[in-house]
Amino acid sequence: MTNFIREKRPSDKTRDISFERNNGNAAGSVTGKFGNTIVLCTASIVPGVPRFLKERGVAKQGWLSAEYSMLPGATTKRNLRESSQGKQTGRSQEIQRLIGRSLRSCLDLNKLKDITIMIDCDVLQADGSTRTAAISTAYIAMVYAIWELQRRKAIKADPIVSQIAAVSVGIVAGEMLLDLDYAEDSIAETDMNIVATGKDEFIEIQGTAEQKTLTTQQLLELVNLANIGIAEILLKQQEALANSSVMQ
Amino acid sequence: MTNFIREKRPSDKTRDISFERNNGNAAGSVTGKFGNTIVLCTASIVPGVPRFLKERGVAKQGWLSAEYSMLPGATTKRNLRESSQGKQTGRSQEIQRLIGRSLRSCLDLNKLKDITIMIDCDVLQADGSTRTAAISTAYIAMVYAIWELQRRKAIKADPIVSQIAAVSVGIVAGEMLLDLDYAEDSIAETDMNIVATGKDEFIEIQGTAEQKTLTTQQLLELVNLANIGIAEILLKQQEALANSSVMQ
Amino acid sequence: MTNFIREKRPSDKTRDISFERNNGNAAGSVTGKFGNTIVLCTASIVPGVPRFLKERGVAKQGWLSAEYSMLPGATTKRNLRESSQGKQTGRSQEIQRLIGRSLRSCLDLNKLKDITIMIDCDVLQADGSTRTAAISTAYIAMVYAIWELQRRKAIKADPIVSQIAAVSVGIVAGEMLLDLDYAEDSIAETDMNIVATGKDEFIEIQGTAEQKTLTTQQLLELVNLANIGIAEILLKQQEALANSSVMQ
Amino acid sequence: MTNFIREKRPSDKTRDISFERNNGNAAGSVTGKFGNTIVLCTASIVPGVPRFLKERGVAKQGWLSAEYSMLPGATTKRNLRESSQGKQTGRSQEIQRLIGRSLRSCLDLNKLKDITIMIDCDVLQADGSTRTAAISTAYIAMVYAIWELQRRKAIKADPIVSQIAAVSVGIVAGEMLLDLDYAEDSIAETDMNIVATGKDEFIEIQGTAEQKTLTTQQLLELVNLANIGIAEILLKQQEALANSSVMQ
Amino acid sequence: MTNFIREKRPSDKTRDISFERNNGNAAGSVTGKFGNTIVLCTASIVPGVPRFLKERGVAKQGWLSAEYSMLPGATTKRNLRESSQGKQTGRSQEIQRLIGRSLRSCLDLNKLKDITIMIDCDVLQADGSTRTAAISTAYIAMVYAIWELQRRKAIKADPIVSQIAAVSVGIVAGEMLLDLDYAEDSIAETDMNIVATGKDEFIEIQGTAEQKTLTTQQLLELVNLANIGIAEILLKQQEALANSSVMQ
Amino acid sequence: MTNFIREKRPSDKTRDISFERNNGNAAGSVTGKFGNTIVLCTASIVPGVPRFLKERGVAKQGWLSAEYSMLPGATTKRNLRESSQGKQTGRSQEIQRLIGRSLRSCLDLNKLKDITIMIDCDVLQADGSTRTAAISTAYIAMVYAIWELQRRKAIKADPIVSQIAAVSVGIVAGEMLLDLDYAEDSIAETDMNIVATGKDEFIEIQGTAEQKTLTTQQLLELVNLANIGIAEILLKQQEALANSSVMQ
Repeated sequence: MTNFIREKRPSDKTRDISFERNNGNAAGSVTGKFGNTIVLCTASIVPGVPRFLKERGVAKQGWLSAEYSMLPGATTKRNLRESSQGKQTGRSQEIQRLIGRSLRSCLDLNKLKDITIMIDCDVLQADGSTRTAAISTAYIAMVYAIWELQRRKAIKADPIVSQIAAVSVGIVAGEMLLDLDYAEDSIAETDMNIVATGKDEFIEIQGTAEQKTLTTQQLLELVNLANIGIAEILLKQQEALANSSVMQ
Repeated sequence: MTNFIREKRPSDKTRDISFERNNGNAAGSVTGKFGNTIVLCTASIVPGVPRFLKERGVAKQGWLSAEYSMLPGATTKRNLRESSQGKQTGRSQEIQRLIGRSLRSCLDLNKLKDITIMIDCDVLQADGSTRTAAISTAYIAMVYAIWELQRRKAIKADPIVSQIAAVSVGIVAGEMLLDLDYAEDSIAETDMNIVATGKDEFIEIQGTAEQKTLTTQQLLELVNLANIGIAEILLKQQEALANSSVMQ
Repeated sequence: MTNFIREKRPSDKTRDISFERNNGNAAGSVTGKFGNTIVLCTASIVPGVPRFLKERGVAKQGWLSAEYSMLPGATTKRNLRESSQGKQTGRSQEIQRLIGRSLRSCLDLNKLKDITIMIDCDVLQADGSTRTAAISTAYIAMVYAIWELQRRKAIKADPIVSQIAAVSVGIVAGEMLLDLDYAEDSIAETDMNIVATGKDEFIEIQGTAEQKTLTTQQLLELVNLANIGIAEILLKQQEALANSSVMQ
Repeated sequence: MTNFIREKRPSDKTRDISFERNNGNAAGSVTGKFGNTIVLCTASIVPGVPRFLKERGVAKQGWLSAEYSMLPGATTKRNLRESSQGKQTGRSQEIQRLIGRSLRSCLDLNKLKDITIMIDCDVLQADGSTRTAAISTAYIAMVYAIWELQRRKAIKADPIVSQIAAVSVGIVAGEMLLDLDYAEDSIAETDMNIVATGKDEFIEIQGTAEQKTLTTQQLLELVNLANIGIAEILLKQQEALANSSVMQ
Repeated sequence: MTNFIREKRPSDKTRDISFERNNGNAAGSVTGKFGNTIVLCTASIVPGVPRFLKERGVAKQGWLSAEYSMLPGATTKRNLRESSQGKQTGRSQEIQRLIGRSLRSCLDLNKLKDITIMIDCDVLQADGSTRTAAISTAYIAMVYAIWELQRRKAIKADPIVSQIAAVSVGIVAGEMLLDLDYAEDSIAETDMNIVATGKDEFIEIQGTAEQKTLTTQQLLELVNLANIGIAEILLKQQEALANSSVMQ
Repeated sequence: MTNFIREKRPSDKTRDISFERNNGNAAGSVTGKFGNTIVLCTASIVPGVPRFLKERGVAKQGWLSAEYSMLPGATTKRNLRESSQGKQTGRSQEIQRLIGRSLRSCLDLNKLKDITIMIDCDVLQADGSTRTAAISTAYIAMVYAIWELQRRKAIKADPIVSQIAAVSVGIVAGEMLLDLDYAEDSIAETDMNIVATGKDEFIEIQGTAEQKTLTTQQLLELVNLANIGIAEILLKQQEALANSSVMQ
C-alpha cells in the first residue's frame, strides 16, 4: 500500500509498542511506549469506595477510578501544569472518564468488595494517541494490582472478565491510518478512538469528524482497521503479563 | 414492532419534539422540548475570539464556543449547583466540548471574522438525552444569531455550511431504541449519541457499552436507527426556522 | 399621575405578573414572569440539615436554603457563567442570602424536622428586579414543596406562618416608581427592595442611594408605594395557589 | 429610659468609640474601636481602575473598592481563614460590597482620574456591628489617602462630597437599642444598619426582621435612633481628622 | 563597630521589641512589635485533631497548627488579599509551615489529648523579618492558650518542653547584621532565619544566598550573631509572660 | 564506620546515582535516579518573562521558574492528585520555590533576555530526598536548555555562572547519614537539605530539628558531610553532560 504520509510505516501498522513493568511503590506500575508517546500508568489499592456508591446503598461492591494528566514538559510547547492552574482541563477530565469507564468494563466489581483500584495515567512524552496508549497500558497495571490483591488474599475470585485494548484510527489526506502520531492527528479529517476486546466486542467508539464528515462505509472500514491494531496490542499485553508472571 | 419497554411509543420513534423561539435578550434564544427533557439554548454574539486563537497567529477568523449546565432542580434528586461547588463537573465539560465541536462543524469560521458565537445550553428539566437535545436546539439558536449578525451587517457571507441534528440510540433489554428517556438510559446495555447532517454524513459518533459489548453488526443497526431520528429532527428544525423567518 | 419615564404604565403599577406551575421533577417548580423578567424557581426536598445546624446541637429542626444565578444568556451583553469562572459573584451570593432569609421568615422550622427545602432561583431572562421576582416566585414553589411533604406524610403540622412577597421601588428623575425594569433601575437615584407580608409587617428593607441621598420622608413614601405592589403580588400568588390546589 | 438588657449603657448610647491613626505603610491607616469591636482599616492608592470601568469606555474617572475580612482569632469560636478555604464567605462579600458602595457615595469619582483607592477592613476583634464600625473607620482612612494624593499633587480638586458614618440599631426584647454588641445582636428581633450623612440624608438602609416583623412606625423610630448615633460618630471622625491635621 | 548601613543601630542589635497581651476573644492574643513590623498572633483552642492524625491511628495526642497572612495594607505597595485571589501564596504557605513546625517543637503533644491549638499570625504592618517576629510572638500567645487550658482543667500536665524564639540575620554589603528590616533584607547578599532555644539548641536554620554564596565560616558567624538576638528575645518573652502572670 | 541503620551503605555514601538524558519534546529532559527515588526533570523554553518582572520595569532580563509535583502513584500509599484537589499542597509550593531559587543562583539572568526557562520536576517514584534529587537533576536539564538556546542563537553569552548540586543529610539514631532514603528520613532526629557549588559556597541550607535540637557542632559536621555528597553529585553531573556533549 503506497503511503504519502507515512514513509516508514504502512498505514495498517501500529508504532513500536512496548510495556515495561516498574519496580515501584504502587501495586501495579507500567511504562507504555507507543513510538514517541510514553505513558506511566500506576494502579493503587485504596480501601473503601467513593461516597456516591455508599449513598446508593447497594450491596457491597468495589470500584475503579482513573485520573489522567499530561506532564507540562511532555509537549514541544510546554503545557500549563493543571495543579498550578487550580483545575484539570476539560480534555483531561474527558479522557480520565473514558479510561475509568473502559477499565470498569473489564471487571466484575462485585468481586472487589469495598476496594477501589485507583488508576493514574501520566503522559511523560506526548506524540499523539495518548488516551488509547493510557488505556492499553493501564490495563496491565490493573492486572498487577489484582494479582497483588490475590497475593494479599484480599479478594477471592478473579474479578477480571475480559482483556481490553485501545487504539486510534483516522483518515488523513483521504487515507485510513492506524495508531496516529501527533503530526497525523493534527491534520486528520476524522479521528476515532476504539476500545475493544478483539472478539468483535466494542467497549467504546468515539469518532469525530474534524474536517470532513464520515460515511457509514468509512465508519465500517475504520472499525475494521482498528481491530487489526487491537489484536496486536492484546498480544503485546499478554506477552508483558506472561513475562511478569515468571518474574513474580 | 412489539415493545416491552415502551408501551406508548414505537422503538423507532422520537418523543414529541418542539422548538420555541424566545423573545429574549440574547441574539438567539430557543426552548427545545424532547418529551420531558427541556433545554434553553441561547446564542450570544461576543466581539473578539479566545486568546488561544490569537496566539496561533492565523488569519482572522471567528469562533463558536459552548457551555452546558443542568439546573439543580432539573432532576428528581436535586443535583449540586456547579457554581457553588466552585467548578463544573467532568460530565458538563465533556458535554459542552461535544456541543462546541459539533456546531463548529456547521460553520465556515473564516466568514465570522473576529466574532465569537457563545452558545449556552441550560437544562431546565432533565429526562434523558439532554446532550443531543442541546445540540439540536442550539443549532437553531445559532442560526438566529447568524441572522442577527447579517441584519447588523457584521458579516457578509453566510457562514453556515450544513444543518445538523443529534439524537441518542441504545440497546435496552436487547431491543434497539431511538431517543432514550431517563428510565431507558439508566438500564441501557449500550448507548450511543450521534450528530449528523442526515446525508450519510456523521459528525460525531460516541458509543459506550455500559453493560454488554457491541458488535459491528449492532453498531451498523444503531447508526441506521439514529438516521431515522436525525431526519425527523432536521425537519422540525426547518419548520421552526421557517416560522421564525416569517415572524421576522 | 403624569409620568415621563413610563409612557405605558402608571408609576404605582407593577408590570404584568404571572406565575405558572411547571410539571417538573422538583417538588415545586414555578416560572414567574414580571414583564420581561423571567425566573424559574424550584423547591427541592433534601433529607437532613446543614452541618452548622447539627453542630449547634439544638433540638431537631429543619432548614431552608436558597441559591440564585443568572443564566449567561439572560442579559443583552452575555454575563459570564459562574461555574466556569469557578465561583459565584458577590452579587449572586448577596441575593441568595436575602432569598433564604426571607423565605425562612415564612416558616416554623421546628415543624420541618430534619428536612431541608432547597430553593433554586435561576433567571432565564433579566429585565430588572430579578431578586424580588425570585422571592415572590420562590414562595409559591416552597408552598408546593410543603404540600408534597404533607402528601408524603413527612410532616404533620403546617410549617407556613405567613405569606410573603417582594417588590422593588425607586426614585427615577425625581419620581417614585414601583417595580423597576432594567432601564429604570440603571438610572435610579435610589432603589429599594422590600419583602413584606402586606399587613404592615416588613421582613427586609434594603435601600441604596445610588446617586442622591434619601430623606426620612422619601423613605416613608417609598415604603407606602411598595405596599401597593406587595398587595398586588400577594393576590396573584393566592390565585396561582388556588388554581394548583384545584389541579391537585 | 429603663433598660433590662443594658445595665451600664442607655439604649440610645453608642459604646465607647475611638479612632487612632497608625503610622503605617498604607496611605491611610486607622484603628477604630467600638467597645470591644476593633477594626483596622487601610486605604491604599493603586494606579489605574478596574477593567470593567475601562470597558465601559467612559471618560476617565477613578474608583474606590473595598475588601472586608474577619481575622480567624477575632471571635470566641475561631472562624475559618477565608484564604485557606479558597474563597470569601458570602457574608464577607456582602459586607465589602456595602462598604464600597457607601464610600463611593462620598466621592466625586471624576476628580480621581485613573486612580483607585483600595479600602481594606480587617476585623481584629469582633463584638458585633463590625460592618458599621468598618464603614465609619474606613471613611477616615479614605480621607487620609485623599490628603496623601493632594500632597503628591496627583489630584487637584477635592473629590470628597460628603462625610458619612454608619451605625446599627435593633429591637431586643421589645426595646430599641443603638449600636448593638454581639450579645444583643444575636437575640435581636430586628436589626438594621444605617449609613448616613447626619443631615437627614440616608445612603444605605438595611433592615432585617430576624424574629419579628417590623411595622412602619418601628422603622421610623429606628431610623431616628440611628440618627443619634450617626451624629455622635460624625463628631468623633471630625475630632480624629482635626488631630491628624495638626500632626501632619 | 562602624556601620554604613545602619546609622542608628549597631549591627548586633535587634530593633525595639515589645509584646502586648490583648484582651481578646481568642485564648491567647498578643501584638508583637519589632521596630515597624507589627504582628497580631492569636492562639485558639479547637476541640479535636486534624483528620490525618486520626487516620494514623496513634494513641490520642493533640496538635498545633499555624496560619500566616499579610494584611493587604501592610505593605507600601498594597499586596493582593489572598482570600479574594482564591488561594494563599506559596510564600504564606511556606511561612505557616515553618511557624507550625517550630511551635510544635515546644510541646509534648501527648499532653494535649485531642485538642488542637490553632495559631493565627497576621501581619498588620510589614517592615521585614515578619516570619521570625511571628514565631517569637506566637510563642507567647501559645503559652496563654496553655494557661487557659490549665485554668479550664482541660489538661493536667504542662505540655511545654522548651521556650523558643526566632530571629533573622544576614549579610548586607559585606557586613553581618542582626534582625533585618525591609530595606536591609531587600539588598541582603545572604539572609538566614533561625529558630532556637538559646542553649545552643537550634530548631530551624534556613539560609539563602540571594546574591553571594556563603562559606562555612560565614555560616558559623551568622549563627553566633543570631544567638545574641535569640537571647534578647527570650528575655523579652519572659518579661511579657511574667507581667501577664501577675495580671491573671 | 560501623552503622546500625544502614547495613549495605556507609553513612557517608550516597545511594546509586544516575542521570539519563531523554529524547523528549522539551528543550532539556533528564531522568535522575537516586536509589529508588526517580525524578523526571524537564526544562522548557518559554518566550517572555513573568508579569511581576515586567512591572518592575527593570532593563530586559530573563527568568527561571520551577514547578514540582509528586505523581499520585509514586508513594506506597497513593497521594492525592493535586490538580483534582484544585491546588498544590504547601509542601509542593515550598519545594518548587526552593528549586527555582537554587537554579536562578546558577544563572546571570541578564544574559537570558526576555526568555523564561521553565523547570518541571515530577517525582515518578519516591523514596526520600526528592527535593535534592530534583535540584541536582534539573540542573542538567537546565544546561541542555541553555545549549538549545545557544544552538538556536537565541542568546549570545553563556548565562551559567556556577554548577550546583543538592543533597540531604540527617541525624538518625544519633548517627550522621548522607542522602537519606524514606525509611531514614521518617525517623530522623534532624534533617537538612543543602544546595552548594562544592567550593565551600552554599546556596541554601535548610535544617529542621524534627525530634532533637541541633548544636552548632552538629551543624558543622552535617555541613561537612553534605560536602562529600555534593562533590560526588557534581562529578556525576559533569559525566552526564560530557556524554551528552559527545552525543550532540
